[in-house]
Amino acid sequence: MQIGVIGAARASEEECRRAVKVGELIARAGAVLICGGLEGVMEAASLGAKRVGGRRVGIIPGYEKRDANPYVDIVIATGMGHARNAIVAASSDALIAIGGEMGTLSEIAFALKLGKKVVGLETWDIPGVIRVKTPEEAVKRAIS
Amino acid sequence: MQIGVIGAARASEEECRRAVKVGELIARAGAVLICGGLEGVMEAASLGAKRVGGRRVGIIPGYEKRDANPYVDIVIATGMGHARNAIVAASSDALIAIGGEMGTLSEIAFALKLGKKVVGLETWDIPGVIRVKTPEEAVKRAIS
Amino acid sequence: MQIGVIGAARASEEECRRAVKVGELIARAGAVLICGGLEGVMEAASLGAKRVGGRRVGIIPGYEKRDANPYVDIVIATGMGHARNAIVAASSDALIAIGGEMGTLSEIAFALKLGKKVVGLETWDIPGVIRVKTPEEAVKRAIS
Amino acid sequence: MQIGVIGAARASEEECRRAVKVGELIARAGAVLICGGLEGVMEAASLGAKRVGGRRVGIIPGYEKRDANPYVDIVIATGMGHARNAIVAASSDALIAIGGEMGTLSEIAFALKLGKKVVGLETWDIPGVIRVKTPEEAVKRAIS
Repeated sequence: MQIGVIGAARASEEECRRAVKVGELIARAGAVLICGGLEGVMEAASLGAKRVGGRRVGIIPGYEKRDANPYVDIVIATGMGHARNAIVAASSDALIAIGGEMGTLSEIAFALKLGKKVVGLETWDIPGVIRVKTPEEAVKRAIS
Repeated sequence: MQIGVIGAARASEEECRRAVKVGELIARAGAVLICGGLEGVMEAASLGAKRVGGRRVGIIPGYEKRDANPYVDIVIATGMGHARNAIVAASSDALIAIGGEMGTLSEIAFALKLGKKVVGLETWDIPGVIRVKTPEEAVKRAIS
Repeated sequence: MQIGVIGAARASEEECRRAVKVGELIARAGAVLICGGLEGVMEAASLGAKRVGGRRVGIIPGYEKRDANPYVDIVIATGMGHARNAIVAASSDALIAIGGEMGTLSEIAFALKLGKKVVGLETWDIPGVIRVKTPEEAVKRAIS
Repeated sequence: MQIGVIGAARASEEECRRAVKVGELIARAGAVLICGGLEGVMEAASLGAKRVGGRRVGIIPGYEKRDANPYVDIVIATGMGHARNAIVAASSDALIAIGGEMGTLSEIAFALKLGKKVVGLETWDIPGVIRVKTPEEAVKRAIS
């Protein structure tokens, strides 16, 4: 399975702490982490997955692999700006949203449009998003 | 100016009636109508703009120009699926959302991310969307 | 009809002279000019079409409409970098290539892949490109 | 390193045999295989890399992961049609072209435009492509 983790590049400490845990649990479940490859929630989830030896894919908006955070494993350099959000959504079997701003909202919308499961940890309240309270619950719901 | 009109392909009669009026007013203001080029709100807005001689651009998800509604003037065939929503947002100086589902939500999110003005007629209630009640008010706010 | 004109942003005087003529003839034939919206061949073709009142669409790689050359009429801001070349090809019923480097080569490849007619004025010698010697012949072949 | 292998979905037996070897050598060198994720050269290279335990990424044009060949490891579902070719080029540090038609030509053009090294095994004769005769030489040149 490929599980997307989406959230803001500028995230709170609490969001990052949760993202680390979510990344770790995705990796422990044997799934591939898909993310936008930049900072904040994306970096924290990548770190969490890396710690336990999971695979981490960063789908970045620009052309330069070095723009990716240091914890991703494989970098997809799209050069497509914000439209890369559609690729993050489409490449994930299910997604976990942690907080997030407009970019995250676009990913949630794309994912729901494509019929993907979206699990939310204090994120946008959009019909169709499955709201949970803990990283454990988030990954459990995403993977089941 | 280029004004985007966004909304669902499956729209209510009331939404289409409003979209026709919005398209007409955009054209009367001398602006170019930008839309997703398909049915529903997109088609209604194109029809409204065409009636009064305005220019209408349809940015479609597929490769076939014939998939565009018959009222657009210029067809941009992206072949990029849902990611074309990012192009609709980016190509508009301001956008008017009429109703809409997940595709429209993704366009609103992209537009706000890019710092564009988004005016809403009974659409998603997202912070940053300027809520109005009539087509006249919508176009007035979008163009000013 | 929508006719694409493709060629390098850094073009020779001769290439630009030809592009101006090609743009003019496309407009005189009542067709819409599609181009990449930047400098060189793109700007020259836009200027030629504008002079005789034709419609000119610039499909640019970035998000800023002001990056388009001053002679385009409608700007499609893709934000998709070089991938916008695929949109230029897909949105044109037929294309005219004038000189050009790697970007132009990618557009020729996409256009031929999509089954479009590609007419070439001293451009890449790729099987499938119809080679002509004058702007008049180029537009005649593209439109017929 | 991430090494792209590009070539036609309809490839000859000889091309596929070479692609298997190229995929194997990329994996043995510890690099990640990047490809378009479909049949022909893409499938053969994925098979070669899988046999020796390498990582294989397929960047596919559609939205359905199941459209990828069975030998890729990670699927990036772009939904962006032929424009995904730009992502294959941009995500590779260097590329090896084996035979190929218009899609491959577009990838070569994008890669050279982005300043990537492109090594060719009986592929398009484009200035900038480093021509080699064997899979061993191809991988050696790509990785060095």
